[in-house]
Formats: sequence, structure tokens, C-alpha cells
Amino acid sequence: MRDIFEAELAQLGDDLITISTMVHSAIRDAGTALLTADVERAQRVIAADADIDELARQADERSVLLLAQQAPVATDLRVVVSALRMSATLERMGDLAQHIAQVARRSYPALAIPEGITPVFTALQDASVRLAERVTTLLETRDLTAANQIEQDDDMIDDLHHDTFAALLNPRWSGTAQETIDITLVGRYYERFGDHGVSIARRVIYLVTGDDART
Amino acid sequence: MRDIFEAELAQLGDDLITISTMVHSAIRDAGTALLTADVERAQRVIAADADIDELARQADERSVLLLAQQAPVATDLRVVVSALRMSATLERMGDLAQHIAQVARRSYPALAIPEGITPVFTALQDASVRLAERVTTLLETRDLTAANQIEQDDDMIDDLHHDTFAALLNPRWSGTAQETIDITLVGRYYERFGDHGVSIARRVIYLVTGDDART
Repeated sequence: MRDIFEAELAQLGDDLITISTMVHSAIRDAGTALLTADVERAQRVIAADADIDELARQADERSVLLLAQQAPVATDLRVVVSALRMSATLERMGDLAQHIAQVARRSYPALAIPEGITPVFTALQDASVRLAERVTTLLETRDLTAANQIEQDDDMIDDLHHDTFAALLNPRWSGTAQETIDITLVGRYYERFGDHGVSIARRVIYLVTGDDART
Repeated sequence: MRDIFEAELAQLGDDLITISTMVHSAIRDAGTALLTADVERAQRVIAADADIDELARQADERSVLLLAQQAPVATDLRVVVSALRMSATLERMGDLAQHIAQVARRSYPALAIPEGITPVFTALQDASVRLAERVTTLLETRDLTAANQIEQDDDMIDDLHHDTFAALLNPRWSGTAQETIDITLVGRYYERFGDHGVSIARRVIYLVTGDDART
């Protein structure tokens, strides 16, 4: 019974790592599509989101089956409940990558982000890809160094998100309303993406240390 | 044992209804604060969000305790897992109401939403308050009429959200960048609020009918 439980639990962990890897690809490609007006790439990210959703659904089914058949307690229960939370969070991160790709697709053949503000979005993109990579590392290794780095990546994302508003509110800003809308929305998507990364980091910290620093 | 379980499950249901009632107040007051530049009201919504977060945390603790002590299966397990999901969703709806109140506070003493576009936001607000009220009704009664009405409210919110972009992209739009940002963000907050309402509606439909129409 215990062996089956351990195997199922390991599989659940692997499911989350797989989803996290897909989220990492999604944000990487969504940002590239956004910054280079690559509509085929945007289209691939949009189409691939259904796979992330389906895997998250399967992970949830596995979690509920584990609860029903094994009735875990204590740490094991905490791991399964956390998996339920984290699959939902990863699924949402995939949605946000998809939203960024949708902005790229809608703007095509133009760039959604005008050139003057590209450096801020390149930095947002880099920090978000790094954060996504570290989420995978954290799920694989449970090494809390990665959790701390995720918090730092998110701080940087928040600062950069603030910079997008500063650019829009600068008297020299002369973009169109559509550009202002897209910058506002895409900035928000990145900001939420970072928040979700932190949510996963804190759940893993809680699992490893028992220290509840939930937001 | 069964009696204790039933009592705990009933309490969990009551917790969700309490949180939902608080979310209803939060969105009602946030929208009023936004549309009337009522900074004291905005401040109250912002402060009250911590109470929603705390109640959601308590509901989660109750859910995990129920899983640990009662090891529910079948329908009972589904109810507890759904409660875990729904508390997270309600907590997020509270956050969105808080975000709307924060925009009202930041703009004070000015109105964040310029007068020309007020009718769209009044309609968004009305639909969102109605949806929030129906979420509470649905949690109280499990009457699926309310679930269908929530889907309709959300369709209306989506249409109105689209109208906010149409207004901003109209050549006659002459608002400031700050107004464009606020309209974009607040529109997005309402749109997400509606989506979360639908997520709860679908979970209740699933609990009542076993029909999985998750988004």
C-alpha cells in the first residue's frame, strides 16, 4: 500500500514538473512572439495551452484519486493538497503566457510593443523566463535557493511593471490608445505571472520547512 | 463519526457562504467608491480584504482537517476538494474588488473613470454585483438556476468589457494615458471577477449533477 502511494506521489510530482516545463516553453515563446511579431510562434503558444490545461486536469484527477484511495495524513496530505493548488497555479501561468501570445497575434504584422519601450519588456520577459525555469528547478530539487531566487525575480518583475506605467505617464509618451492598452495588459500579465511563481515558491517552502509564508 | 463529519461539512459550507457575502459587499462598495470617488469607502474595502483572506485560510484549514480526520470518499471528497478550490476563487474575487478600490483611492479626489464612459462601468458594476449575489445564493441553495444566471451575467460582463476597449479605440477618445490605463485595468478586473464567478458556478454544477463543464 505504501509502495503504491509513494509511486503515485512521485508520479504526481513528475506531472507538476512536466506542466512547469511546458509553462516555461510557453512564456519563452510568447515573449519572443511578442517582441518579434512572430505570429506562427504566437499561434503555437495559443494552441499548446490546451495541453497544459489537460495535464493540469490529469494531475488533479491523480490527486483526488490519491486522497480517495490512500487517505493520506500529515505530510503526505500536505503534499497532495499542495499539488492541487500548484497545478491550478501552473495552469493559470500557462493562460497568462497564452494571453501574451494573443496580444502578439492581434497586433501582427505590427509589433504590439513600440520600440521605445522594448527594453522594459525585454527585461520583463527575461525575468519571467528565468522565474519559470526556477519554478521547474524548485519542483525538481526542492532546493530553497531556487525559491529565494523566484522571489527576487518577482521583485524585479514588479519594478519593471512599475516602469511600464512610468513610460506611459511620461509627457513624451505619444503612443496610440491601442498601444497604451496593450502595454497595460501585457505588463499586468507578466506581473501576475511573477506572483504565481512566488505562490508556488511559498508552497514549496511550506512543504519543506513547515513555515507558512503564504501571500 | 458520520455526525461529526456532517457537522464539519456544513460548517465548511457556511464558511464559503460567509466569504461569498463579504465578496459581495466588497465588490458593491468598491464599485460605488470608483463611480463616486468615495475614498473612505475605497479605504474600507481595501482594509476588509484581510478579513476575506483570513476566512479563506480558515476554510482551507477546515478542509484539510476534514481530509485528514475523516478521509472522505466519493461525493464527500468531491465536496471538500471543491471547497478548497472555491475558497481560493472567492479570495481572488475579493482581491479584484480590492484592486478596483485601489484605483478609486489613487485617483481621489478625481474620478478614475471619466464621465463619458461611466455608463459602461455602471453596467459592469451592476452585472458584477448581481453575479456576486447569485454566487451566494448558489452556495446557499445549490439551485442551478442561479448557476445559469451567473453564466449570463458573465456574458454581459464580457460584452461590456469589450465596450470599454471600443470606447478607448474610438477616434473621439481624448482621455489621458492615466485614464486609458485605469479603464483598461478596471475593465480587466471586472472581467476576471466574472470569470471567477463562472468557475464557482461550474463547480457547483459539477457537485450537483456530476457534469464536468469546467473551463
